[in-house]
Amino acid sequence: MSTVATATAKEVFDLLHEDLAAIEREFGQDAVSAVPAITEISDYLREGGGKRIRPSLLLLAARALGYSGKGMIKLGAVVEMVHTATLVHDDIIDAADTRRGRPSTNRTWGSSKCVLVGDWLYMQAFRIALSERKFRVLELLIGLTQQMVEGELMQMEKLGKPISESEYNDLIYRKTACLFEVSMRLGACLSGADRPLEDALGEYGRSLGLAFQIIDDVLDLTATEQVLGKPVASDLREGKATLAVIHALENGILPADRTRIHTVLRDRTFDYVSHEEILRILNCNQSVAYAMNTAYAYAATAQAALAVLPDSDYKRALQWMPEFVVARDK
Amino acid sequence: MSTVATATAKEVFDLLHEDLAAIEREFGQDAVSAVPAITEISDYLREGGGKRIRPSLLLLAARALGYSGKGMIKLGAVVEMVHTATLVHDDIIDAADTRRGRPSTNRTWGSSKCVLVGDWLYMQAFRIALSERKFRVLELLIGLTQQMVEGELMQMEKLGKPISESEYNDLIYRKTACLFEVSMRLGACLSGADRPLEDALGEYGRSLGLAFQIIDDVLDLTATEQVLGKPVASDLREGKATLAVIHALENGILPADRTRIHTVLRDRTFDYVSHEEILRILNCNQSVAYAMNTAYAYAATAQAALAVLPDSDYKRALQWMPEFVVARDK
Repeated sequence: MSTVATATAKEVFDLLHEDLAAIEREFGQDAVSAVPAITEISDYLREGGGKRIRPSLLLLAARALGYSGKGMIKLGAVVEMVHTATLVHDDIIDAADTRRGRPSTNRTWGSSKCVLVGDWLYMQAFRIALSERKFRVLELLIGLTQQMVEGELMQMEKLGKPISESEYNDLIYRKTACLFEVSMRLGACLSGADRPLEDALGEYGRSLGLAFQIIDDVLDLTATEQVLGKPVASDLREGKATLAVIHALENGILPADRTRIHTVLRDRTFDYVSHEEILRILNCNQSVAYAMNTAYAYAATAQAALAVLPDSDYKRALQWMPEFVVARDK
Repeated sequence: MSTVATATAKEVFDLLHEDLAAIEREFGQDAVSAVPAITEISDYLREGGGKRIRPSLLLLAARALGYSGKGMIKLGAVVEMVHTATLVHDDIIDAADTRRGRPSTNRTWGSSKCVLVGDWLYMQAFRIALSERKFRVLELLIGLTQQMVEGELMQMEKLGKPISESEYNDLIYRKTACLFEVSMRLGACLSGADRPLEDALGEYGRSLGLAFQIIDDVLDLTATEQVLGKPVASDLREGKATLAVIHALENGILPADRTRIHTVLRDRTFDYVSHEEILRILNCNQSVAYAMNTAYAYAATAQAALAVLPDSDYKRALQWMPEFVVARDK
């Protein structure tokens, strides 16, 4: 599907290694407050790691357009900080016990402190973004945060109920793709790109994010706990219908199978219908294949959106991302 | 203490009536979202009322400097929205059952939704502020929110413990005076005031806010539930030491009385030492009078800061505010 040779994981890692290390240092310095609880919780979250995919996108977008200033380090830390703030608040809402294999912050520090630390991280992210003195940057970040917050509220309303494919698309856009899109747009902004160019890179981020989340949701259904490193089928156990499940429900499966899926969603447990049984239904109806193909299509859309960029190592790294995202097994 | 004749409550009400009604409409329109829960909770909070003292300050500052544009209506709604967002998150943290005599939002809609609705209100406030296209406006609002959030975290750490007078001052600055200050500064900003003028009006807001909160804290200790319209001595029952209590502890009271105050703070109940007993200790030591005098001094500082303004009905209304704030009985 690509038009130029794509990079390898190693090449991308080498390409971004120094910039990402600088972002890590920036985040570490930015998330220091006179209030010890803030610094403590921020450090805990930062040390918890994560793929740093959002700052990587921002760096690649900026560098692919010839930018090399300090702004990309600052805004790279900003997108990671916004991401972290949403995780802190989401963990409170889901009453999560763990995050990335460690106790969640609300578990360790209590929900009250975590509400405030999440607020603080949002504000700190905006404060750093403000220092770039670009209204467009603030517009993107504030709009993004609002979309994500609305998405989380929409998801709460839908728990335990089947949703349509278009509702699912909207939810995963808000949950994941919106921040991927904004990361790309911010990189474009820094380089002084005009709106059509920013839009093209935004389209890349959006499509990549949708592919990323669809695959995440498929893996939650199909992977083993051993490979995934966390409990599987957590979406269904939380009452969340994801693409393969929606496809099965919308595509004329046997009424008995439909009832089985509804039962799991409603009861949020595999006590009455097993996880294996659900997988059998999804595979019978080609629903997992449908979800995978949808992700492949988004990955191809992402790659096509890169046609606006001049050839470079950074463009090749961007070409590689969608392939990596759809091929991963965890 | 005033240099020009102050207004009466009726005059101030008439002066701001139309602008405040416009702010009410603006807030109503701004807090509408595609997500029904957001609109519902925002409407509930807006209809709950409140004194609208913050938007009033902003209006008076702007108008006293000759501004009359739409910006003061928008930013008036913004400061009320930021204030509302902090109340939503604070009620979660305090696990409050009521707010302004009605069930609190977390009680009605649950904490999870309220975390997100608070987030949304912050973002919406910033989004509207952004439309003014003034970096200083954003800087003030973002800095403010961070100070308030840090203050709330600091207060959590101090619950049940005696604090120093300077710690108390810092806490009430962050809790109340900071938003009063920023409201005044925003009004000044809109009119294009230079920094010394903005600083003078900020000083007015800060001093007024400190006076306001000290009186609030005194009333919590001394008023009757009938007059106050809410349970009294809630601060002590939440383990919060306020100015009169701090004064008593810091000014050589009898060891037995000190122990009584510590007991109430630590146990957060009047089961072992009565509210009347605490009041007796505070009055014996002139501690309530000390707190009142401190508030009067801040009120005078606020009025003195107005010397920079040309005479006008708006200035007279600003002169009136501190007198109203220290004279109220609820």
